[in-house]
Amino acid sequence: MALRIDYTNMLAGAVSGGIPADAWAAAERDFAATHAAVKKLQGTGALGFLDLPRDKTLHDRSRDFAKAARGKFDDLVLLGIGGSALGPIALHAALNARDWNTLTKKERRGRPRFHVLDNVDPGTIAHVMGRVDLARTLFIVISKSGGTAETMAQYLIVRGALNEALGAKAGEHLVFVTDPEKGALRDIARQEGIAAVDIPPNVGGRFSVLSPVGILPAALLGVRTTPLLAGAADMARRCRAATLRENPGAVFGVLQWLADVHLHRGLHVLMPYSDPLRDVSDWFVQLWAESLGKHRAPDDAGVGPTPIASHGATDQHSQVQLFMEGTPNKTVSFIQVGEHPVDVAIPKLHQDVPELAYLGGHHLGELIDIERRATAGALARRGRPNLTIHLEHADEWHLGALIMLLEVATVYAGQLYGVNALNQPGVELGKQFTYAMLGRADAGAARREWETLPKPDPDASV
Amino acid sequence: MALRIDYTNMLAGAVSGGIPADAWAAAERDFAATHAAVKKLQGTGALGFLDLPRDKTLHDRSRDFAKAARGKFDDLVLLGIGGSALGPIALHAALNARDWNTLTKKERRGRPRFHVLDNVDPGTIAHVMGRVDLARTLFIVISKSGGTAETMAQYLIVRGALNEALGAKAGEHLVFVTDPEKGALRDIARQEGIAAVDIPPNVGGRFSVLSPVGILPAALLGVRTTPLLAGAADMARRCRAATLRENPGAVFGVLQWLADVHLHRGLHVLMPYSDPLRDVSDWFVQLWAESLGKHRAPDDAGVGPTPIASHGATDQHSQVQLFMEGTPNKTVSFIQVGEHPVDVAIPKLHQDVPELAYLGGHHLGELIDIERRATAGALARRGRPNLTIHLEHADEWHLGALIMLLEVATVYAGQLYGVNALNQPGVELGKQFTYAMLGRADAGAARREWETLPKPDPDASV
Repeated sequence: MALRIDYTNMLAGAVSGGIPADAWAAAERDFAATHAAVKKLQGTGALGFLDLPRDKTLHDRSRDFAKAARGKFDDLVLLGIGGSALGPIALHAALNARDWNTLTKKERRGRPRFHVLDNVDPGTIAHVMGRVDLARTLFIVISKSGGTAETMAQYLIVRGALNEALGAKAGEHLVFVTDPEKGALRDIARQEGIAAVDIPPNVGGRFSVLSPVGILPAALLGVRTTPLLAGAADMARRCRAATLRENPGAVFGVLQWLADVHLHRGLHVLMPYSDPLRDVSDWFVQLWAESLGKHRAPDDAGVGPTPIASHGATDQHSQVQLFMEGTPNKTVSFIQVGEHPVDVAIPKLHQDVPELAYLGGHHLGELIDIERRATAGALARRGRPNLTIHLEHADEWHLGALIMLLEVATVYAGQLYGVNALNQPGVELGKQFTYAMLGRADAGAARREWETLPKPDPDASV
Repeated sequence: MALRIDYTNMLAGAVSGGIPADAWAAAERDFAATHAAVKKLQGTGALGFLDLPRDKTLHDRSRDFAKAARGKFDDLVLLGIGGSALGPIALHAALNARDWNTLTKKERRGRPRFHVLDNVDPGTIAHVMGRVDLARTLFIVISKSGGTAETMAQYLIVRGALNEALGAKAGEHLVFVTDPEKGALRDIARQEGIAAVDIPPNVGGRFSVLSPVGILPAALLGVRTTPLLAGAADMARRCRAATLRENPGAVFGVLQWLADVHLHRGLHVLMPYSDPLRDVSDWFVQLWAESLGKHRAPDDAGVGPTPIASHGATDQHSQVQLFMEGTPNKTVSFIQVGEHPVDVAIPKLHQDVPELAYLGGHHLGELIDIERRATAGALARRGRPNLTIHLEHADEWHLGALIMLLEVATVYAGQLYGVNALNQPGVELGKQFTYAMLGRADAGAARREWETLPKPDPDASV
C-alpha cells in the first residue's frame, strides 16, 4: 500500500520550463511558517476534515444505518449538489462495479441501484421518479446548511410523491445528512422523527466526502469504508510532517503555487489514467476552484488557480494538443494506477498490417501506462511541467489517501495564495438574485440590485 | 425554431470589465478580411464539415445501414477515441432517453443498448465484453486514419472474441467508419468484405460529428438525423454572412478572441443549463482545445484559449465561486433551453419553514432558468463578461445548429489567433514515444529521443 508523488518533471533540473531550483529551495526554507500557520488553523478547529478518518462514532453511525437498511431498498436516490454529490459520485464510480444500475440485484450483492439528483433539470427528476418503486426506495437528502435551494426543491418534489404514495410511512424512506443542530432539514427531522446523520459543523461541503456525506451512501452501496478511512488516516499522518519534502499534501500544494507564481502556470490539470477514477477529477475541481478562487485579503484582488478535469488516455485525443503547444499556463498532474485488478491481452491478429501488428502481445494495462509515460515525457521534453501521483492499486485505501492528499494540499495552497480556503462568499450574490426572482420574502435588497442590472441589448444579439 | 446569442454582457457598455466599444467596432470593421480568409479556406476544400448537412448520399448511407440493422442487435458498442467518441456521446445523451441502458427493449423502441469504449482501461473493456451477447452485438469501429493505437487495440480484442465466438460470421458484427480510401481499417474492410462507411477526407476528427462518425451511431440508436442536419444547415447558412453582427459563428469566435486579446480572458467556459446537453461541453472542449491550442506560425509562440466544461445549475456549487471572484481570466458562455419537454411542479409543503416555503408553487424548469439568469447577472455585476446561447428547445434541430455554430466559431477563432485550426501536430511526440515503448519497428528515432529524457529523480519524490 503506497501513494507516491514523483515531481521530477516539475523542477527546472529536469524540465526546461520547470520551477527554478532557487525557488524550490526557498519554498523549503519558508515552509516552517506555512506549516505553522496550517497547524494554527487546525488548532482553531477549522480543519475538521482531518479528524474524519479517526472518528469512529461518526463512521459507526453510517455503518449502522446501512446495516439496518440492508435488503429494504432496491433504489437509492441521493439529493444533493456540489460537495454533497461530487464526493459520493466519485466514491461510487471508483469503488463499485461499472454500469452499476444495469447489474442484477445479485451482481450488486443485494445493494440498491444508485441515482444522483444533483441538478434541477426537470426531465431528470421526472425520469428518476417515474422509474423507482417508492415503496422500495430510500432518498438520502444531503445539505450541510439544510437550506440549499436546489436540494430543497428536489426534496419537496420527492416528499410530495412519498406522501401521496406512502402516507404516514413517507418518513421511513428518507434520511437526512445535515448539520447536527441547525437548519431546516434538522428541524424537520426532529419534528417528524426522520432519520438524520450528522455532518460535523467544522467540516465544509467540499471537504466532507469522508464524513457521512460520502460514507453513508458508500456504506449503503456496499463500499468497504474501513480501508477508505484507513488510507485517509495514513495520509493525514504523513501530512503532519514539518519538513516540506516529507509532507505529500504540502508538496502538491506548494508545487502548484510555485508554478503559478514563478511560471504563470495557474491552470492545474488533474488527469487520472483510469476510468473508475475519472470522477475524482470533478470532485477535485470543486475542491480546488471553490477553495482557492477568491478575493485575496490584503488587496481584494481576484486570485487563485483554475483546476481542469482531464481523463487519460482518452483526452490525449482532446486536450493534450493544447497542453503540449498552447499558451504555457498549465501544470498537469497525472494519476497512475500501478496494478489493474483485471488485465486484457491484445491478441496477435492482422500481423501483416503494420498499424496493428505492433500492438499484439501487449496488454491494455501496459498500454495505458505506456501512454501516460509517453505523454508525461513529451510534455517534459517540450518544457511543460508535470507530476505523477502513483497509486499502487485503485482500491479503497489508496482512494482515501488520494482524497486526503488533495484536501491537505488545498489548505496549504490557501495559505500560500493568501485566501481563506474554507469559505465561498462569491456565490452569495447569485443566490440572492435567485431568491429575489423566486419572490423569497427576505430578498428585497437583492431585488433592488437586480433591477439596476443592464437589460439585454437587442443590438448585442444574433 | 431559433438559436440566438445574447452577448450584451460581453461588452463594456453593460459590464465594467467587458470588451471596449472601440475594440468591438474595430473587429466589425476588420471582419471583411477574416471573412474573406475563411471563405478562401473553404474554397480550398479544407472545411468539409460545412457541406455535411447537405450531403444526402452520405446521410442515406448511414440511414440505410441503420435500417438494415434494425432488430438484429441488442447492444451497440462503439470503439473510438477523441473526435470519434465525443460527438456520438453528445448526440446520444442529448437526444435519447436518460439512463438508456437501463430501459427495456420496448422503452428503447427496439434500439440497442449503447456502450462507448473510448479508453484502454482494461477493466472497462473486460466489463463490456463480459456483458454483451456477441451474437446480438454490433461493434462500430471509428478511426479516420484507420490506425489510432487505442482504437486498434480495442478492435483486436473485439475481433479476437468475435472470431472465437462466431467464426466466419465475425465480420457481420463489425462496421468501420473510416477514410474512403486509406488506412488499415479500409484495407481490412476491402479484404474481408466488412461493412465500411466513409468519413470524407476533408473532415477532421473533431469536426466529424455530423458525418457518419456521429450520424451512423445516432441512426442506429433511433435519433432523428434529418432535423439534426437541417438545424446544422440553417446555421451554416447564417454563418455565411459577411457582416459580423449577422454571423453567429463569427460573433462567438470574435468575442472569445477579443476577450483573450483585450481582457486577458483566455479561459472559455461553456456551461449548459441542462442535463442532456452536459456532454456537449466535453465535445466543445476537444473542438476548441485541439483546434486553437498550438504554436502560432510567425513566432512559434504557444497560444490559444483553454476551454472549460461546466454544467449548470450543478457547478454553481463547484466552479462559480472561482468564476465570480478568482483570477479574472475567463469568459462564461451559458446555454439556455427555452422550453423543457417535461416540467415538474414544486409542491407547497413545509410552508412554515422559510428555507423551503418560497420554493413551493414554482416549477423546476423555471428554477433552473432563474438560476442561470441570476448567475449571469451576478457575473455581470462583478465585471465578469459572459454570453448566453438561447435554444428554443433542446431538440435535434437546435443541437445541429449549436454544433455548427461552435464549429464555425472555431474556424474564425483559428484565423484570428493565427493558427491552423485543422491540424494537431502537438500530439505526435507522445504518439512516437508510445510506439517506441511498444516496440513498433519504425520508432527508432523516438526510442533514441526517449532515452535522452531525464529519469525520475528519487529526491523529487514523496
